[in-house]
Amino acid sequence: MRIAVDGMGGDNAPQEIVAGAVLAARELDCKIVLVGDQSLLRSELEKHPGVPKSITVHHAGSFIRMDESATLSVRKKKDNSMSVCADLAREGVVDAIVTAGHTGAAVVASTLKLRLLEGIERPGIGILLPTLLTPTLLIDVGANIDPKPVHLYQYALMGDVYFRYILRKNRPSVGILNIGEEETKGTDYIKEAHRLLNKSRLHFVGNVEGRDIFNGKVDIVVCDGFVGNVVLKVSESIAGVIGKLLKAQLKRNPITMLGALLAKPAFDALRKEIDYSEYGGAPLLGVDGNCIISHGSSDARAIKNAIRVACQFVKYEINQHILEAVKTSQDMES
Amino acid sequence: MRIAVDGMGGDNAPQEIVAGAVLAARELDCKIVLVGDQSLLRSELEKHPGVPKSITVHHAGSFIRMDESATLSVRKKKDNSMSVCADLAREGVVDAIVTAGHTGAAVVASTLKLRLLEGIERPGIGILLPTLLTPTLLIDVGANIDPKPVHLYQYALMGDVYFRYILRKNRPSVGILNIGEEETKGTDYIKEAHRLLNKSRLHFVGNVEGRDIFNGKVDIVVCDGFVGNVVLKVSESIAGVIGKLLKAQLKRNPITMLGALLAKPAFDALRKEIDYSEYGGAPLLGVDGNCIISHGSSDARAIKNAIRVACQFVKYEINQHILEAVKTSQDMES
Repeated sequence: MRIAVDGMGGDNAPQEIVAGAVLAARELDCKIVLVGDQSLLRSELEKHPGVPKSITVHHAGSFIRMDESATLSVRKKKDNSMSVCADLAREGVVDAIVTAGHTGAAVVASTLKLRLLEGIERPGIGILLPTLLTPTLLIDVGANIDPKPVHLYQYALMGDVYFRYILRKNRPSVGILNIGEEETKGTDYIKEAHRLLNKSRLHFVGNVEGRDIFNGKVDIVVCDGFVGNVVLKVSESIAGVIGKLLKAQLKRNPITMLGALLAKPAFDALRKEIDYSEYGGAPLLGVDGNCIISHGSSDARAIKNAIRVACQFVKYEINQHILEAVKTSQDMES
Repeated sequence: MRIAVDGMGGDNAPQEIVAGAVLAARELDCKIVLVGDQSLLRSELEKHPGVPKSITVHHAGSFIRMDESATLSVRKKKDNSMSVCADLAREGVVDAIVTAGHTGAAVVASTLKLRLLEGIERPGIGILLPTLLTPTLLIDVGANIDPKPVHLYQYALMGDVYFRYILRKNRPSVGILNIGEEETKGTDYIKEAHRLLNKSRLHFVGNVEGRDIFNGKVDIVVCDGFVGNVVLKVSESIAGVIGKLLKAQLKRNPITMLGALLAKPAFDALRKEIDYSEYGGAPLLGVDGNCIISHGSSDARAIKNAIRVACQFVKYEINQHILEAVKTSQDMES
């Protein structure tokens, strides 16, 4: 199993990316190709004593900054690290790619170079979120901000495969994110997606609301990439805001401060429990290749977990199963 | 100052609504007209010893359940408590209305009976959210799920008035909720709203992301009612989910349990700090009348706070100021 890792993408590149790749090479059964400025990556690797031989470096002459336009930069900088990763995947040199760089550029580069799976019209980013019960997969969180009803249906189809083969849950439940549970609620395109899902073979439970994402009521929640992106960023920030507000309250008197000190192990455990980086990267579902997008602020552990997810995608042949699911759904229609 | 309170709306009607009205009549300088089934409301009032004379009851023969269709139910049940409140406002019997009932029905009934302010094309629900710094007004959270660019612009205009006259802040900042800060991000309608706000006299700071809502970076955040509603419900639920997860962690051993006990005053203070009901109801901005929508799960305190907000709207003549702001913006254009 060979994974290309974009060494130049993310807020903490290349340090944390290289450190994560080293961790993965030690803990996981895979070969890693670090892609980016070779002298930079080599000197970064030298900081780690006894780097496993399963890590190699592949040069890329440029990279895409977070503030650049996705489409333009992919088109202009032919040798950017993300596109080079996708090239390696297309040529069969690697089985999967992992990047913590510019999400939009990752979507554009992957779609352009690897193309979409037959029958899939648009890619979607699926992210696993911690909830009160088992994790929920929210798809799409930003690949496609203006989807058609059939795109939501296909997200559900791909999410179903993800749950069955990676999370080992049969007949996972699927909901459409809406502003009310009633069938009559929402915009026209949501009502049409509702109709498509209703007649599908998926375990469709109907509309779910914002509050249902984190109570773990449903396994897969489909939505347009605009709403999904906003939900993701809002929820990431709220945990931090609540933490800061609580800290300020705890500091107000010595007894509550003592309480906080005693309770610290529980706070730490909670932080770990709701930490996205524990869950690894978010797969870009629908492209004809395995592309895992990691959070821009990924540290070494998050990168290692994203590489782990990439390995699972290859091992469980997720794309093969998606193709089968699309075929079955097309056969049903005709 | 006379406020009509929908005695039949909300999960805890009529008990908590009546209790909230009694609290408000005692603490605030206003007369309250409780609207709904008169025998039910009278017997509920009798549970409170020494009910102030400033509370009267006005009969309404029916009410709208949470699971009914907004438009249909308002049209069919002419004598529903929400429509009767709006009738009282239109006839000048009351200065404002407060309801914790079906939000969609409140929007339909108010818009139908009271009409919109001249120059305003769509109403929007604005809700004040607690943040790390000063509260942020999010508008719209569900009145209009498919807005045009000009609607977002008018939300900003109305939010600006709200901040200047009720929160006493000059030149509040306005942002559009988007998936990135760059001007090129988002759907076409958002780009057009961006253009409208850019050339306005408002203190427009550009696009803001989901994470900016709760960090208090911006005073007013405008968005479509679909996204706003999802954000509201996600954020309401996350605080509860984090609380439950933390509780489970704290219970794992006796020392962290002791810590939690000592830290309890800080937890309680935090709960109060982020409790929406402290902030009162959400104004339905844009209708030619004062309509405050309170959370469906409102308790007596939330209802009292919503009545307080209604009084402020009347006192500071918010609608008059919105009309002036619309006029000024129209003069600028021509």
